[in-house]
Amino acid sequence: MKEHLTIVKVGGAIIESNTKLDGFLKAFAEIDGHKILVHGGGRDATKMCEKMGVEVQMIDGRRITDRESLKVAVMTYAGWLNKQISAKLQAEHCLSLGLCGSDLNTIVAKKRNPIPIDYGFVGDVEQVNAWIISELLNLGIAPVFSAICHDGNGQLLNVNADTIASELAKALSSKYTVRLMYCFEKLGVLEDPEDESSVIQEISLDTFELLSGKKNIHSGMIPKLTNGFNALKGGANQVQIGQLEEMLKGEHQGTQLTL
Amino acid sequence: MKEHLTIVKVGGAIIESNTKLDGFLKAFAEIDGHKILVHGGGRDATKMCEKMGVEVQMIDGRRITDRESLKVAVMTYAGWLNKQISAKLQAEHCLSLGLCGSDLNTIVAKKRNPIPIDYGFVGDVEQVNAWIISELLNLGIAPVFSAICHDGNGQLLNVNADTIASELAKALSSKYTVRLMYCFEKLGVLEDPEDESSVIQEISLDTFELLSGKKNIHSGMIPKLTNGFNALKGGANQVQIGQLEEMLKGEHQGTQLTL
Repeated sequence: MKEHLTIVKVGGAIIESNTKLDGFLKAFAEIDGHKILVHGGGRDATKMCEKMGVEVQMIDGRRITDRESLKVAVMTYAGWLNKQISAKLQAEHCLSLGLCGSDLNTIVAKKRNPIPIDYGFVGDVEQVNAWIISELLNLGIAPVFSAICHDGNGQLLNVNADTIASELAKALSSKYTVRLMYCFEKLGVLEDPEDESSVIQEISLDTFELLSGKKNIHSGMIPKLTNGFNALKGGANQVQIGQLEEMLKGEHQGTQLTL
Repeated sequence: MKEHLTIVKVGGAIIESNTKLDGFLKAFAEIDGHKILVHGGGRDATKMCEKMGVEVQMIDGRRITDRESLKVAVMTYAGWLNKQISAKLQAEHCLSLGLCGSDLNTIVAKKRNPIPIDYGFVGDVEQVNAWIISELLNLGIAPVFSAICHDGNGQLLNVNADTIASELAKALSSKYTVRLMYCFEKLGVLEDPEDESSVIQEISLDTFELLSGKKNIHSGMIPKLTNGFNALKGGANQVQIGQLEEMLKGEHQGTQLTL
């Protein structure tokens, strides 16, 4: 029988507030069995760019990661945030290990094609090395991934954290029963963004494709949902979106994704 | 019979030059058997402080690590430098793992007593968890330590990198035959700092105590030598100071420390 693995993705407002982050990490530390944390960076890197006078370049509303922005992203995500999370989890007696994709060659990414738009040092996940991650899990280690990967030739790349969580879930699903949770400050995907009680309990792939076409789903939710469905299609057993503390109380909290 | 472990410490001018660092990492990647790299940060953190407008406070010529300086140190050492080294080593087919002391609870430090002088978030090594480091080495992993540790209660601390190398050598010497190499741009400890050919081949503890009292040894060398002798006294089998590439050519390059 396969062992159970919980993969948790966190970002946004939780990462930006010390109190919220502490509560979240306490809950994560208490998860039984194998577990992996993936974190985004919130607006920390943007603030750091402002402080350092690094200009944030945008094309068509999308951010360009030039050499200086990459340095800020690595310092902020793989440095300050990742190491703070690792230290805070140790204080909760969780044997955490802060990682970026170059560490142990865990995640190799490919620099995005510069045509038609050159996004700079942005990568898409090419390969997850499930073997070495399993070895870590077997030692009772909880890997903590920042969203920085490498290309195998010495170049670091900025990668979407939601995608990293999804790709980890897919790659590890052959060996583990995988539960993937996208965590944020809301109780789940809301039907009405202004109404906290309007959590959609279940979204099927068909409904998602129908609703997202009609722009009935909040744009910020689209990447999480797309990545969540990709994980399900790739072998993950359960994908949920919501608050970690609530989702850990039972199987039916948050928004469940179904194929 | 004990297995062999090579611990290499690098810092200063090698870390600050991309070309020198690449050559150094190529040599490190080629070392056979178990190996650990410890890196300092050169002047990168100072430059970053200037860029971010963080004022560097000094007392009696020694730097104070306040909250902002700690953030810069973690971002620069445990973030940018550590992850770049990890990515560059992977490109050399070395299964590197960038770490700070909080990762896997590898190195616990104690915040330095604020009396008589409060140096801020500076720590002294209290405990090295040799068990988990051995587990990594057994998997063929080359740990790469930045000089950031934690106090076990969620606080990151800035620690001297020479001391980290020495403490690792001591803690791992019960299980391994340890060769510790302090690497920098010179061929060894020089009798005359202006004359590159004046390498002192061997320094005994007695000579060191005699010479350092008379200020016959360049002040920059004192911490390396003190830490090197501590490692020898604590169980390390060989301690050398010099250029990595040269010291790897044979046992008698660089400056050898003897008790």
